[in-house]
Amino acid sequence: MTQPEPLTRLIEELQRLPGVGRKSAQRLAFHILRAPREDADRLCQAVQDVKEKVTYCSVCNNITDIDPCAYCTDEGRDRRLICVVEEPQNVIGIEKTRDFRGAYHVLMGAISPLQGIGPDDLKIKGLLARVEQGGVEEVILATNPNVEGEATAIYLARLLKPLGVRVTRIAMGVPVGSDLEYADEITVHKAMEGRREM
Amino acid sequence: MTQPEPLTRLIEELQRLPGVGRKSAQRLAFHILRAPREDADRLCQAVQDVKEKVTYCSVCNNITDIDPCAYCTDEGRDRRLICVVEEPQNVIGIEKTRDFRGAYHVLMGAISPLQGIGPDDLKIKGLLARVEQGGVEEVILATNPNVEGEATAIYLARLLKPLGVRVTRIAMGVPVGSDLEYADEITVHKAMEGRREM
Repeated sequence: MTQPEPLTRLIEELQRLPGVGRKSAQRLAFHILRAPREDADRLCQAVQDVKEKVTYCSVCNNITDIDPCAYCTDEGRDRRLICVVEEPQNVIGIEKTRDFRGAYHVLMGAISPLQGIGPDDLKIKGLLARVEQGGVEEVILATNPNVEGEATAIYLARLLKPLGVRVTRIAMGVPVGSDLEYADEITVHKAMEGRREM
Repeated sequence: MTQPEPLTRLIEELQRLPGVGRKSAQRLAFHILRAPREDADRLCQAVQDVKEKVTYCSVCNNITDIDPCAYCTDEGRDRRLICVVEEPQNVIGIEKTRDFRGAYHVLMGAISPLQGIGPDDLKIKGLLARVEQGGVEEVILATNPNVEGEATAIYLARLLKPLGVRVTRIAMGVPVGSDLEYADEITVHKAMEGRREM
């Protein structure tokens, strides 16, 4: 295959991105090739800016371009409530609901023995320090509803409860708008277990 | 949503790429954010190199980093045969079969009145000039098997035949490895029409 070397290299680089296979990488590369030079420049500038300007909040580990982040300094937010999530993108997901007005703590992952990620690889110390400082009434564990997230939640609950703080876990059940028929048994089990009085 | 501006901008830029929706753009942006700085730099360098070093062959319009391209200068290729395709990526698709050893001509699109693309927007003049120069025995029209590709093929055949060259069209039919049950009626019609003696 006689293909210009720079194009081959771009396809290779694009393939390193998550969810981008050989075919998509090729399509993206050809798009970049045909698109105006300014588009390519703007994309690169955006990539560089993210690498240069975005850091992690020293309080909650969320991504931010100011430290501490806007969530940690916003006086309108209730700092008695800390919502613990695995990744910065989870914060975005929760913010979209617009009904959580507390603070966050990003763990930067979940306990996963299979991937060799232990508690020491997560930002747990900072969370404990925040609770120990006082003023926190409830820690909501919003780690993922999977094995790793659940293990992390159990581990954190064990550390947090002795500090005298209320520890809660987000509800697991059948997703809204879905059909019971398509829910897996563990989800249905969780939904039954977590049933509420109407 | 309090999200660092550079991240929002990167997500926006990524969303401009074909086949990248809001969710994928977000996933890609977070990946870039977490990945090592060198990865981001290498990606940007690859994008810049493609924009700077890759041009179009002055003979066949295929993408290349040398002009004329490797296909047009390769003495091992049979220049009596020209395979006409819509886009440079189609050349890669045909090369993969490893059984075409002729030359190429890239039209840079197909006639599409709906998208306002007429014959004058395509690289047709160069193709006619190559045939008029002599030495070409067959032009294989490998434009896409859809309305635009078919219209383009018919249009080209009308221009090429008077020049005394053999004009052929790639076969349309049911794809190998597929199931007749899932083939649409036009494809089946084409497959029946193009049937061959066994």
